[in-house]
Amino acid sequence: MPLLTRIRGPRDLDRLSLEELNQLAEEIRSFLVEAVSKTGGHLGPNLGVVELTIALHRVFDSPRDKVLWDTGHQSYVHKLLTGRQDFSKLKMKGGLSGYPSQAESEHDVIENSHASTVLGWADGIAKANQIMDRDDHVVAVIGDGALTGGMAWEALNNIADAKDRPLVIVVNDNERSYAPTIGGLANHLATLRTTDGYERFLARTKEVLERTPVVGQALYDTLHGAKKGLKDFIAPQGMFEDLGLKYVGPIDGHDLEALESALAKAKRFGGPVIVHCLTEKGRGYQPALQDEADRFHAVGKIHPDTGLPIKSSGADWTSVFGDEMVELGKEREDIVAITAAMLQPVGLEKFAKRFPDRVYDVGIAEQHGAVSAAGLATGGVHPVFAVYATFLNRAFDQVLMDVALHKCGVTFVLDRAGVTGTDGASHNGMWDMSILQVVPGLRLAAPRDADQVRAQLREAVAVDDAPTVVRFSKGAVGPAVPAVGRVGGMDVLREPGTDRPDVLLVSVGALAPMCLEIAGLLDKQGISATVVDPRWVKPVDEAMAPLAERHRVVVTVEDNSRVGGVGSAIAQALRDAGVDVPLRDFGIPPRFLDHATRAEILAEIGLTAPDIARQVTGLVAKLDGRYERGAVDAVDSVDSVESVRD
Amino acid sequence: MPLLTRIRGPRDLDRLSLEELNQLAEEIRSFLVEAVSKTGGHLGPNLGVVELTIALHRVFDSPRDKVLWDTGHQSYVHKLLTGRQDFSKLKMKGGLSGYPSQAESEHDVIENSHASTVLGWADGIAKANQIMDRDDHVVAVIGDGALTGGMAWEALNNIADAKDRPLVIVVNDNERSYAPTIGGLANHLATLRTTDGYERFLARTKEVLERTPVVGQALYDTLHGAKKGLKDFIAPQGMFEDLGLKYVGPIDGHDLEALESALAKAKRFGGPVIVHCLTEKGRGYQPALQDEADRFHAVGKIHPDTGLPIKSSGADWTSVFGDEMVELGKEREDIVAITAAMLQPVGLEKFAKRFPDRVYDVGIAEQHGAVSAAGLATGGVHPVFAVYATFLNRAFDQVLMDVALHKCGVTFVLDRAGVTGTDGASHNGMWDMSILQVVPGLRLAAPRDADQVRAQLREAVAVDDAPTVVRFSKGAVGPAVPAVGRVGGMDVLREPGTDRPDVLLVSVGALAPMCLEIAGLLDKQGISATVVDPRWVKPVDEAMAPLAERHRVVVTVEDNSRVGGVGSAIAQALRDAGVDVPLRDFGIPPRFLDHATRAEILAEIGLTAPDIARQVTGLVAKLDGRYERGAVDAVDSVDSVESVRD
Repeated sequence: MPLLTRIRGPRDLDRLSLEELNQLAEEIRSFLVEAVSKTGGHLGPNLGVVELTIALHRVFDSPRDKVLWDTGHQSYVHKLLTGRQDFSKLKMKGGLSGYPSQAESEHDVIENSHASTVLGWADGIAKANQIMDRDDHVVAVIGDGALTGGMAWEALNNIADAKDRPLVIVVNDNERSYAPTIGGLANHLATLRTTDGYERFLARTKEVLERTPVVGQALYDTLHGAKKGLKDFIAPQGMFEDLGLKYVGPIDGHDLEALESALAKAKRFGGPVIVHCLTEKGRGYQPALQDEADRFHAVGKIHPDTGLPIKSSGADWTSVFGDEMVELGKEREDIVAITAAMLQPVGLEKFAKRFPDRVYDVGIAEQHGAVSAAGLATGGVHPVFAVYATFLNRAFDQVLMDVALHKCGVTFVLDRAGVTGTDGASHNGMWDMSILQVVPGLRLAAPRDADQVRAQLREAVAVDDAPTVVRFSKGAVGPAVPAVGRVGGMDVLREPGTDRPDVLLVSVGALAPMCLEIAGLLDKQGISATVVDPRWVKPVDEAMAPLAERHRVVVTVEDNSRVGGVGSAIAQALRDAGVDVPLRDFGIPPRFLDHATRAEILAEIGLTAPDIARQVTGLVAKLDGRYERGAVDAVDSVDSVESVRD
Repeated sequence: MPLLTRIRGPRDLDRLSLEELNQLAEEIRSFLVEAVSKTGGHLGPNLGVVELTIALHRVFDSPRDKVLWDTGHQSYVHKLLTGRQDFSKLKMKGGLSGYPSQAESEHDVIENSHASTVLGWADGIAKANQIMDRDDHVVAVIGDGALTGGMAWEALNNIADAKDRPLVIVVNDNERSYAPTIGGLANHLATLRTTDGYERFLARTKEVLERTPVVGQALYDTLHGAKKGLKDFIAPQGMFEDLGLKYVGPIDGHDLEALESALAKAKRFGGPVIVHCLTEKGRGYQPALQDEADRFHAVGKIHPDTGLPIKSSGADWTSVFGDEMVELGKEREDIVAITAAMLQPVGLEKFAKRFPDRVYDVGIAEQHGAVSAAGLATGGVHPVFAVYATFLNRAFDQVLMDVALHKCGVTFVLDRAGVTGTDGASHNGMWDMSILQVVPGLRLAAPRDADQVRAQLREAVAVDDAPTVVRFSKGAVGPAVPAVGRVGGMDVLREPGTDRPDVLLVSVGALAPMCLEIAGLLDKQGISATVVDPRWVKPVDEAMAPLAERHRVVVTVEDNSRVGGVGSAIAQALRDAGVDVPLRDFGIPPRFLDHATRAEILAEIGLTAPDIARQVTGLVAKLDGRYERGAVDAVDSVDSVESVRD
């Protein structure tokens, strides 16, 4: 990598010739394939923006000018050009984040991995520049997929309103979000593509195609499909111009000269302007281009030559859900599925293949996923909206005011709930069991194993007058954890072996094995513990308070923010029942979590069996002391708290 | 009202002639002015949709066809035509809701008052019709203001994608949301208006104008402004057509014949189609038309002839905030204000007049309000986003992932927090103090009186590395409640008068006078109580646990969902500190509240001084019993719970 290693910052690009810049682009692609193959990461999106990123840093002067990335997984090239070339620990503890990070570099601004935010950020920064009388530039890079999100529209509507506020919007149009972009906007972009610039892009691409025949055919089909929009074509600038936004493009996003020229023109313009760039996700890496599903959007460790995963994973939560959805689909014609641009990652691919007319990809539009589900339920079908737990936050108002207020039978399936790990702060699904607590009528299930995913999904879709939620973890699902008894609607996972047990251990979801381990460790200390899995954590089971009352202390363990979570809800239920047994709630502390593996994070926040067992042991010892003294002093368990506090 | 009283249901419209229908429209306008003058309610929006509503019910067959209203305050005429003509108790307990209500009528579907939802609902219902093989029609009425919301965009993008799914979208374009609509979209709609239909509308309007000269001038100016868009005009259908949506219009929304013809055409079309109707908010009522600020969007009781309020209100929370913002604006040039289409209702009008370049109306776009605030803060200014508490739910993800994750100094001012009353379930601001608890770093103030609004707003804008929230009630602010002491950062409002007090009463925000009343009632029972106002309810003050420990029981009282609210947070803080003093948390039960006055609702849910005092008395009596017996039995306080449980 003779050129790449010499780039310490964006200004080092200034002295390179066009030929050298193209060579640099090739070096970066080789680097990315090699590096990301070893660590896993977002490969396809970054291969698509190599030239674009180079051009951006040639034309704009970061960090004075703000170069903003939507859904920052496309920022690897930006990292390489801004002094960060050690990718050996990408997404690992102590290594580079998979997203921009203000802690890493002054060139990074937006750390959030939730899509469609960049235009709002750009609008705010441009407004601040105007207020502070700065002539800095703001450039926002957004994918065509992210334009399907409502936030993007709200921002465009605002940006268009200020003709004198410089702001460059780069639409990185690869016809995809995770999967191909959907909706009227996608069709419109297809129309925009049918112009001179597009034809030039096509001609250039053709050379590449001839060298990679399999890919070539697929790409040709895609492009051919895009051209069908032509007959409705009115004006090349279309809706953007209608909104009052100037438009440059479409530009071949792999032609450095064209890119620089367009970006320079946009920079000089002095108002809001859109630069429409056509790029190819997975560009230059044949295994990615051959993958029609997602073009290697995000990969685990792979063989760089073949793109095949180094180890195949066992059964995971997602596929257990996906398979059961197919079964449910066969049994009930009124069950439909919704995804927000993530058909495959949420496990709905099989359902979609089997029942293509009963699945809706709404785009990166969780709000629409939820509100249209309310409409679907009102129309007499039962929608199952499968979405990453963290992304449901976008639809909180719709879950509350559209689905719950109207008592609609909608099932939300929250994948990647709890600590997910390496994708960083904004991917952890650690909020759902807190914020959903306030939603009247909503029922929330946290299955502990594959059997429970199947069973609870079935229980959920049987509810037709309230929202139901089934939330589970990321990755491999553990072995079955059998129930040894039942109290109310709750599964007893372990009996205490005594009539007057010390601890009631409430296990939530996938933490069941850990809770059994805690009980085992307590047992060695002579502390008897019942382990119960409520299955449905909201509402709190009516049998909980009487059960708690038979114990000396209640301990809850959940893979969710401990603020307002299941532990808090149980504590309130006990108070309401007048059961003042001391309770200690373990969960995720109220702070954002840095990227690391799930295990590393759980260890760091004290969510491990030994940590919790130690603290519970201390608590019980102190309770013993109190009872012996007969005093009413409060239990001093400050040491049980420090490790889980911010 | 000879014609109106004969209308029992939509089909009664079928036999009326055009002349009779126009007479009916006049009767409805007179009815609305008279009825709403007496009760208060949404006057302007309903005066604008009289002919449109008649035409909709002539062309579509409700309830088989679904007629859906966005932001249902424009549904009064719909109520009149569907068997509901007793407006004497509008918005009062036992009377008609101010919004559609499924409990009231089979003709009503969407009860939610949050804007921009209707297209999502319509998309869902249309999908269900297709799945269930029904040929029912779906028609969604949405204002031009509501189109600025991201949900509308997400829905349009989806609706445009299904050419074979019938769905009629009526854009009720009055150039306003609450205030005039902003943004690129508004400019585009202005362009669309410049066509034949528009010219006809203008000619018709002219007749009216000549009879009402003051209004005439204002309207002329507006229309003239609109026409400025003409020179950029490309194609009359513009961006809607670009998305692939068929378009009919613009139609004069007060011309019954034109409306019926357009709607019938749209109904026959068989796919998604937009009918663009131009209406006049406040139509036919001179006091409304003369009110440029909001055209009598929502009024209290007024004199029907003059439109003047029957009684002027005293100082309210909103104006205290608004006045202080002007003072802050004078002192600090870096303070800017944001509103989501509600400049006047949130009290920012004076600030806007004084500092027009430092206020941003983002449209009905709370997401953009929050994310652009993150950008503004990153750019070095301090934004204050003033918004109704209930509407902040729309921006939860942005508060969390954009503002808090990036440690941006943004202040959210939540107006109409707590029980607001007559506007019904979706207007109550009862969620904020629960869902915001999970946001790391966020600080939340609940001022108890006008002085505290001013003081805490100042404390909030002084924080530049985290989100701050100041939340207050709707309506008149009570007299000052002085502090008699200070513990940590908390104000002591009442000392217990004994060294070993019984009750620590934690008062949140505007409930301070009620809490003092509770303490007085307890005093009569020989129970001593400290009353403390934490001022900042998040994070829990470090002095809380030591203070609580000096009492026998802690009671929290808040005007927010008791699930996950301030009481829960304090309970957790006490647990974390090992302080196991019994706690009882009073707040709003976890259900949606029917419309009634604030006082009626508080009484119904047991949030009154006598109710709470009675329950606390019972609790203390039982604690006494326990201590006398020396037993460790849990306190049985079930009776304290029943009245606040769903």
